[in-house]
Amino acid sequence: MKIACLAGDGIGPEIMAEAKKVLAALDIAGIETADADVGGVAYRNHGHPLPPETLELCKAADAVLFGAVGDPACDNLERHLRPEQAILGLRQALTLFANLRPATMFAGLEDMSALRPEVARQIDLLIVRELNGDVYFGEKAIRTLPDGRRQGFDLMSYAEDEVRRIAHVAFRAAQGRGKRLCSVDKANVLETSQLWRDVVIEVSAEYPDVELSHMYVDNAAMQLVRNPGQFDVVVTGNLFGDILSDQASMCVGSIGLLASASLGETQTAFGTKGLYEPIHGSAPDIAGQGKANPMAMILSLAMLLRHSLGLDAQAARVEAAVAKALADGVKGADLGGSANCAEIGDAVVARL
Amino acid sequence: MKIACLAGDGIGPEIMAEAKKVLAALDIAGIETADADVGGVAYRNHGHPLPPETLELCKAADAVLFGAVGDPACDNLERHLRPEQAILGLRQALTLFANLRPATMFAGLEDMSALRPEVARQIDLLIVRELNGDVYFGEKAIRTLPDGRRQGFDLMSYAEDEVRRIAHVAFRAAQGRGKRLCSVDKANVLETSQLWRDVVIEVSAEYPDVELSHMYVDNAAMQLVRNPGQFDVVVTGNLFGDILSDQASMCVGSIGLLASASLGETQTAFGTKGLYEPIHGSAPDIAGQGKANPMAMILSLAMLLRHSLGLDAQAARVEAAVAKALADGVKGADLGGSANCAEIGDAVVARL
Ligand SMILES: CC(C)[C@H](C(=O)O)[C@@H](O)C(=O)O
Ligand SMILES: CC(C)[C@H](C(=O)O)[C@@H](O)C(=O)O
Repeated sequence: MKIACLAGDGIGPEIMAEAKKVLAALDIAGIETADADVGGVAYRNHGHPLPPETLELCKAADAVLFGAVGDPACDNLERHLRPEQAILGLRQALTLFANLRPATMFAGLEDMSALRPEVARQIDLLIVRELNGDVYFGEKAIRTLPDGRRQGFDLMSYAEDEVRRIAHVAFRAAQGRGKRLCSVDKANVLETSQLWRDVVIEVSAEYPDVELSHMYVDNAAMQLVRNPGQFDVVVTGNLFGDILSDQASMCVGSIGLLASASLGETQTAFGTKGLYEPIHGSAPDIAGQGKANPMAMILSLAMLLRHSLGLDAQAARVEAAVAKALADGVKGADLGGSANCAEIGDAVVARL
Repeated sequence: MKIACLAGDGIGPEIMAEAKKVLAALDIAGIETADADVGGVAYRNHGHPLPPETLELCKAADAVLFGAVGDPACDNLERHLRPEQAILGLRQALTLFANLRPATMFAGLEDMSALRPEVARQIDLLIVRELNGDVYFGEKAIRTLPDGRRQGFDLMSYAEDEVRRIAHVAFRAAQGRGKRLCSVDKANVLETSQLWRDVVIEVSAEYPDVELSHMYVDNAAMQLVRNPGQFDVVVTGNLFGDILSDQASMCVGSIGLLASASLGETQTAFGTKGLYEPIHGSAPDIAGQGKANPMAMILSLAMLLRHSLGLDAQAARVEAAVAKALADGVKGADLGGSANCAEIGDAVVARL
C-alpha cells in the first residue's frame, strides 16, 4: 500500500513530520510512503504548483496525505500558477468529489470553543461537501466589456449526476451515524440549488431510514452558531461547504483539530482511494516556528487508515491517542497551551 | 414625506403594526404612510408577489418599510411567482445596491448570545452587503444537456462599477465609525472576487484614513465566531453578505433584533431613498400568534428615519427606547422572555 505524502507550504512540512512519526510508530506492515512537492514550493522547484511527477505519484498511490498549500509570495502569480490550484487540481484530477469534514467536540475542550460550553458540548456533526463542481470549476474570467468596463464572472453549475453521487455518500454516512441528513442550499435564489434539492429528494427514496431536511445556507450559518447540536450529517455544495465547515471548526475550538477526507469512487485493495488533509491552511505567519498544531494532520492520517486502508482499529487507536493527549492537557498555542508541534506529535505517539 | 408600508407574509403584519405604533407615537409632522401588498399575500390577491401598483407606490415613496416575505404555500410556484422574488425585484427595480446590516451587542443581552459573554460583548460591526449583483441576478436556468441529464446553472458576476459604488459606501461608513474596513471575498478561487479585490484596492486610494484588509469568506465565517470584536465595517458581495449577516445575528443573540437598510443613489428631500427591513424572515411557523419580536422591525424604522428622512434625533430616540426596553427585561420568546409582539411595541412606545 502506497501513500503519497505532499507536505506543501508554510506549516505543511512540520505537521507532516508529526503525522509520519505517528505512522512509523504504528509500524504497519506493507506501507510505503513517497514524498513530492506541491504548492508554492513546487512552483519554485519545478515551475508549477502541481508538477506532472507529483500528479503521477498521486495517481499511482492508494492514498494521498496532504499538508497545506498557500504562500503569500505567490499572490501575484497568474491564477493557474498559484499554490491553491494544486489542491483544486488534485481534487479534480483524482475525481475526489466527496469531502468528509467531521466536527466533534473533544472532552475537555469545551472551554476553548467560542460558543458557550453547554452549546459547544453538543457538537457532533459531519459535513459532506461536494468537491468537484459548483462555482469552483465552472468557466471563469475577467473580461472587458464593449464599453471598457471590466467584469468578473464565474459560472456556478451542478449536473444531476454530480448531485446524485454526493447525495448517496451523504445518505450512507447518515445511515452509519444518527440517521438525519440536512441538505443546505439557496434554492430560493439559485437554480443550481433548486436542482440540488430536487435530486436530493429523488435520492432520498432509496434511504427511507434517513430523515431528510432542507435548510437555506444563510439559516444554516445561523443555526451552526445557535445550536450546532441539532445537526447530524450536513450535505452541501462546494462553496457553501467551504464556508460552513470553517465556521464549524470554531465552534469546536480550533481549526487545528479538524481533519478531512476527500474520496472518489476508485477502490483500493482495502477501501476507497482518497486524499486526506487538515481543513486549516498553510499559516505562513507561524511557519517554521514549531507553533503549529499537528493534530488535524494526525487525525487526517487516521481518516486515511480508515477509508483507504481499511484499518479501522488503527484509525481508532490514533484518534483515541489524540483525544487522550488533549484530555491530558497537551495543547498547542491555538488552544492556549504551550506544547510545540514536535511535542504534540510525541505526546500522541506516547499514547498510542 | 411618504413611506410605503409593505407588511408581507407570516409575521410581517404583526411586526409592521408595532413599527407603525412607534411611528405614530413619534408624531412627526408631514409623514404620510400608504400600505400595499407584497409577497405571498400579493400573489393571492393580485396574481403576482410584486404587483405593479405596489411597485409604483414604492417608486413614488421616499422610503419603503418592509416586513417579510415567504410563504410555504407558495413553494411549488414557478420561481418568478414566489414571494421572495418581491424583495429581490424591489432591490433591483429601485437600484438599492447597498445593504447596511449593523450588528451590535445590546447591554444585558450578552447571556443570549450563543457565544461566550466575553466574546459577545465585543460585537459592534456593520456589514455592508452588495445587493444588486453577484449570482443573485445573473443568468440562471435548469437545462437539459444533449445526453438527457439536467444541469442547473447560475452566473456569478460583478462589473467594476458595481464594485466601486459599494466600496465607496463601505469606506464612507468606515470613516464614520472605527476607520477599519475588511473586504471579504474568495479571490483564491473566483475571478469575480479577484476583480472585487482589485477594485476595492483602487478605491482605497481615496480613503487614506481607513485601514483596509482582505479576508477569504471561509476564514471570515470562522473569525466571526472566534472573535467578532475584531471587525468594524465588513464589505462583501450579495451571496457572502447574505450568509455572514445571518451568522452575525446569532452572535448578537437573536435574529429578532437586527435591522437593515437598503440604499441606492436616489436622494430624497432629507436623505437617501431606501428600503428598510428586519433581516429575519416571515417565520410562518409562529405567524399570527403574537410570538414575533418586533424590535428588528422597529429598529428598521429607526434606520429609515435616519437615512431617508434625515431625522437623526428621532432615530436615536427609537433606538434608545428599544435598548431601554431590553435592559428593563422586556423580551420576546426569541430571547427566552414572555412579552408578546404588541406588548413589546407598547414597551418601546412607553420608553420613547
Ligand atoms: C485553498 C482553497 C482553494 C480551499 C477551498 O476553498 O476549497 C480551502 O479553503 C479548503 O477548504 O480546502
Ligand atoms: C429571501 C431571500 C431571497 C433574501 C436574500 O437571500 O437576499 C434574504 O435571505 C435576505 O437576506 O434578505
